[in-house]
Amino acid sequence: MTEKVTIEQKVLSENDRLAAELRQKFTRHRVLCLNLVSSPGSGKTSLLEKTLAALNHELKIALVAGDVQTENDARRLERAGGKIVRPIVTGGACHLDARMVAKALEAVPLEGLDILFIENVGNLVCPSSYDLGEDMKVVLISTTEGDDKPLKYPGMFRRSSVMVVNKVDLIGSSEFSLATVRENALTINGQLTVIELSCRSGDGLPAWYGWLRSQVRR
Amino acid sequence: MTEKVTIEQKVLSENDRLAAELRQKFTRHRVLCLNLVSSPGSGKTSLLEKTLAALNHELKIALVAGDVQTENDARRLERAGGKIVRPIVTGGACHLDARMVAKALEAVPLEGLDILFIENVGNLVCPSSYDLGEDMKVVLISTTEGDDKPLKYPGMFRRSSVMVVNKVDLIGSSEFSLATVRENALTINGQLTVIELSCRSGDGLPAWYGWLRSQVRR
Repeated sequence: MTEKVTIEQKVLSENDRLAAELRQKFTRHRVLCLNLVSSPGSGKTSLLEKTLAALNHELKIALVAGDVQTENDARRLERAGGKIVRPIVTGGACHLDARMVAKALEAVPLEGLDILFIENVGNLVCPSSYDLGEDMKVVLISTTEGDDKPLKYPGMFRRSSVMVVNKVDLIGSSEFSLATVRENALTINGQLTVIELSCRSGDGLPAWYGWLRSQVRR
Repeated sequence: MTEKVTIEQKVLSENDRLAAELRQKFTRHRVLCLNLVSSPGSGKTSLLEKTLAALNHELKIALVAGDVQTENDARRLERAGGKIVRPIVTGGACHLDARMVAKALEAVPLEGLDILFIENVGNLVCPSSYDLGEDMKVVLISTTEGDDKPLKYPGMFRRSSVMVVNKVDLIGSSEFSLATVRENALTINGQLTVIELSCRSGDGLPAWYGWLRSQVRR
């Protein structure tokens, strides 16, 4: 097992090196890079669809959409008005790594870009270990998943800067408590910004757009 | 990367060896072993709570509950009447492996046992690669996750024998179609048994109990 650990460390340190290169590039071009992570089906693609519809006319947005299989998410983002959308099919891998992102970005001009969204593979565990050069990880959780998730998957919540609680329109149809999820998340990471919204009803989306505007670097 | 792949193959083949030993043991004792897999929050623990409440008096059931962090699930299962509940805290690992299960089972007498449930870590990707000696994988998907999940995470649906579609009481509050999820799942794996239910409303649970009874080996 020691051998395995050593190899994993090598893979991760090579990833960190590539991620640092990406981060330098993003900083140089003043691009805000957000790495969206969540369970499968929490609503990452839906949130990006809404964001494109609302902000595409005022901000220049590029998107990298990672998927284990299919390019469905990338196609949804193109239909939602995304002009620069790059799919990554990991072919079974459970996370994106910096090499995949660097390769996907080869054809994306960063000049004049305001925001680069990286939609990670739906997985609350593995993507937390892979730095993609992002400014921040944004973790989505939906109210139908249960308010205990920050305690059960602490690594992801510890390494994220923002927690978006999606599907607040479904509260009441499950035992989910906004107060409890917030308390659980802040126990793990006291620095988390918490934004509650529903991509379906539209509640809370203006707060998300406002936060995005406040983070853009130009 | 070749070195990494070789090590992964070694780890997996060692896992397969241990899993084969477990499988022999289960067969010898006529224990039905089911490996429950899903995204975080699809309802694995809720389904097991309901199953214990309904079948604990007629079948002898043991449970192994895996979690990245916390023993919350194991505690919930004990409260639901589980007499033999063994927690596994993976400490960050994104899946259970056969070694963890073998260790957890050291203190569990298999004699006279009807069903052993293994509740895996909430993750639709990594647990698909690790055989735990189970007779079958049962994959849960909840209606709030979207009906495209079998296409996006095909490995897990290909390696499962049963797909349980949970939270059917929430259909209508999202764009989920039972016909579509069934079609998508059967495209990936034509052998899948599909059971639709709601742990919350109780709809469909008798079909699940009936299926379990039909699989017990004594």
